[in-house]
Amino acid sequence: MTPESSSKIVKTSKATLALLLDQAIEDASKDQLVQAVAPLHPAEIADTLESLPYEKRLFLWRLLDADTKGDVLVETHGEVREQLIGETTAEELVMAVERLDMDALADLDAHLPGEVVSAVLMAMDAQRRRRFDAVRSYPDDTAGGLMDADAIAVRGDVTLEVVLRYVRQLRRQQGSVPEHIDTLMVVNNDNYYIGMLHLVDLVSFDQRSSVAEVMDSEIEPIPADMPASKVARAFEDRDLISAAVVDKSGQLIGRITVDDVVDVIREEGDRSVRHLGGVHAETDIFAPVLTSARHRAVWLGVNLINGFIAAWVIGMFGESIEKMVALAILMPVVAGMGGVAGTQTMTIVIRGLAQETVISGNVLRLLYKELTVGALNGLLLGVLVGTVAMFWFDNTTLGLVFALALIINLCVAAFAGTLFPLLLHRMGIDPALAGGVLLIAATDVIGFTVFLGLATLILM
Amino acid sequence: MTPESSSKIVKTSKATLALLLDQAIEDASKDQLVQAVAPLHPAEIADTLESLPYEKRLFLWRLLDADTKGDVLVETHGEVREQLIGETTAEELVMAVERLDMDALADLDAHLPGEVVSAVLMAMDAQRRRRFDAVRSYPDDTAGGLMDADAIAVRGDVTLEVVLRYVRQLRRQQGSVPEHIDTLMVVNNDNYYIGMLHLVDLVSFDQRSSVAEVMDSEIEPIPADMPASKVARAFEDRDLISAAVVDKSGQLIGRITVDDVVDVIREEGDRSVRHLGGVHAETDIFAPVLTSARHRAVWLGVNLINGFIAAWVIGMFGESIEKMVALAILMPVVAGMGGVAGTQTMTIVIRGLAQETVISGNVLRLLYKELTVGALNGLLLGVLVGTVAMFWFDNTTLGLVFALALIINLCVAAFAGTLFPLLLHRMGIDPALAGGVLLIAATDVIGFTVFLGLATLILM
Repeated sequence: MTPESSSKIVKTSKATLALLLDQAIEDASKDQLVQAVAPLHPAEIADTLESLPYEKRLFLWRLLDADTKGDVLVETHGEVREQLIGETTAEELVMAVERLDMDALADLDAHLPGEVVSAVLMAMDAQRRRRFDAVRSYPDDTAGGLMDADAIAVRGDVTLEVVLRYVRQLRRQQGSVPEHIDTLMVVNNDNYYIGMLHLVDLVSFDQRSSVAEVMDSEIEPIPADMPASKVARAFEDRDLISAAVVDKSGQLIGRITVDDVVDVIREEGDRSVRHLGGVHAETDIFAPVLTSARHRAVWLGVNLINGFIAAWVIGMFGESIEKMVALAILMPVVAGMGGVAGTQTMTIVIRGLAQETVISGNVLRLLYKELTVGALNGLLLGVLVGTVAMFWFDNTTLGLVFALALIINLCVAAFAGTLFPLLLHRMGIDPALAGGVLLIAATDVIGFTVFLGLATLILM
Repeated sequence: MTPESSSKIVKTSKATLALLLDQAIEDASKDQLVQAVAPLHPAEIADTLESLPYEKRLFLWRLLDADTKGDVLVETHGEVREQLIGETTAEELVMAVERLDMDALADLDAHLPGEVVSAVLMAMDAQRRRRFDAVRSYPDDTAGGLMDADAIAVRGDVTLEVVLRYVRQLRRQQGSVPEHIDTLMVVNNDNYYIGMLHLVDLVSFDQRSSVAEVMDSEIEPIPADMPASKVARAFEDRDLISAAVVDKSGQLIGRITVDDVVDVIREEGDRSVRHLGGVHAETDIFAPVLTSARHRAVWLGVNLINGFIAAWVIGMFGESIEKMVALAILMPVVAGMGGVAGTQTMTIVIRGLAQETVISGNVLRLLYKELTVGALNGLLLGVLVGTVAMFWFDNTTLGLVFALALIINLCVAAFAGTLFPLLLHRMGIDPALAGGVLLIAATDVIGFTVFLGLATLILM
């Protein structure tokens, strides 16, 4: 190390860290590694842990002190989080999580062993415990589960001067005030939410004004049972930084800040991609081989059923294929193109459903549009592939049958690609999860049937 | 309408809005529709416009006043935004956008006709224009392109009291202070960024403290040329609400707030999903049929090449298929399962690349893991499908060949699913865009070759 690097905080890159880790594991000299990790943000340590194979991950994990472990756990995901919790003693877990923020703790608590949760609860004072119970009483994927129960609330009928005195007093009493605050919540005498006081307004308006005069009453409060995805859309659409959470009666029970929402949005995008690949449960790239294999085997099995149904369809036309082997050569093209075109339509419909631009009022219109696009591209590609097949096998009728089958299958693809996600959505099933399998089943079966069937009728 | 509904603001649902729209188009009574739209947030109007077919969309658009049009344009995406701009006169566009926020304007300006931009620029005062030029000089997908150039900066050596006076003066002079502020930027005498002053600290600490004493110097500034995706990761990892943007020398040039970042994160997730479907350019569900058809034909064409390569491979084994039609029946299963397994691996690798958990240091390890998973599932499924084929066609050797081909293809899938995205990433090509086509080409060609090849060698 150069003298300069020790004089100021130097961020260690992942590559350097990997080298230091290998060295430390080899010659048991942990000091350099500990030094390298110290200046990193918990999220960066979590990233590093997630990029390491099992034994290196545990080696690094064991070097962290209890406080850091708590912060890092909050930043890890799914399988890795569970694994790290499993490798930590109950005693150390209690130390790691007891001083976490309320919402971080509520987020972790479902994954922690029961004894750890009880020990942490025991150590809380009554007020903190009541708040924690409030957050825990709502499912993780609702506004109540996302919220922080320690919102600072002020009354609408006091002056800004009084609010300023109150905030200063909080600082003196508690040493710190909650982070990420751009607003204070405003309530009436019965704790009903009536608006938000922007800090920038608190400092810039006349100190003798009342809170009610300068507060922002346009931002609607969020009901505690609103699903997290809707909360995320509301924050996105309104460019919110924080919002009040209210119970059914309208009483203020907490606040949500945008940093919680950012995680929801990232996870939503991430989840749709993994659903399409059928690997939604797999969040650890170095999950044990058997776990990964089992997760994926389920999806492969579902697709295998598809494959055998298609094989059975082909089998029905065995005689035709024996007479004209060109059919076997061309049939995967018809099925495959249907699958690709259907996936295109489905991607757009699924996105529209998520963004609520696809609604019941425009479904017919959308179906009509997708069918037109399918027919148009079917015609274009049909003429192209039909001509190729005609010359390849020197058989005009075969070319025509091939072209016709492709046109029909692209229309089927448009139809299935539009309706399957809509039906799944209506049935409460995530279309990104099951849509692809159903779609490929449809375009395979119908593609093979139409092409081989037409060929049998016309060419045999 | 009931008397209650007129006394307070009632939000109109999309379904109601659609009905009112149909009515308004029919009997040309626009008043009710205008009333229904008035209380909606610009983002909600944008959503509604995006869910409407072409002519209804324009009907509603024309009813909006110029100010609303400006706010709504900012919230629309891609094709719909361009279409709406195209349907608005230059004069009205100038009125619509001239009072927009700096960063909203900079975001729109690439889509606006040149004459509109010049007219808006002409109307700006010198200071606003200089700031606007600063934002425009950076590409949209960098920190500089995301930033707001009107950050409020204070000096580190003044007292909190002075800052409070300054903020109050801003309020009196300009009537309003920028929204979404939770911090003020702190600079030294030469405008170099040195930290951030949280508003909550400004109001709660002793007024005689200096800014430098209470400021937060832990939040690193963001270089203006940092890519937007990295900015998003930084905000996510550090739970930031706002951060300073600095130029190469370290001078403060603007600030990014989390609401800009939320859009980046949403678009990233959205884009990966659409890339996988090959419909990345298509953002308007009611884009004109010809436009949609053209976009998708390109992707279908790319996949068609794949299809014909696979057909050519099958063609080489035409004689074997003529002798044993079971080969034609089973071959799509081998190719298809390879495609599904490869997609699973690729999904995980692409996600790991985006989250930077897949790095050069662990690639070999990852490849080894994926190959093991592939071999394991290959064995499992191979035994299963081999047995089915054995009984179906009453041919033990065929069952063995089928099983062996499946095992080999699942290993190929693991190999291609790991390495293709890594190679594309290294070459600077988005793996979500091109990975799928390459992967299916590999699993199809190798699946057909191995199965038909082994069958020709062993069974013929």
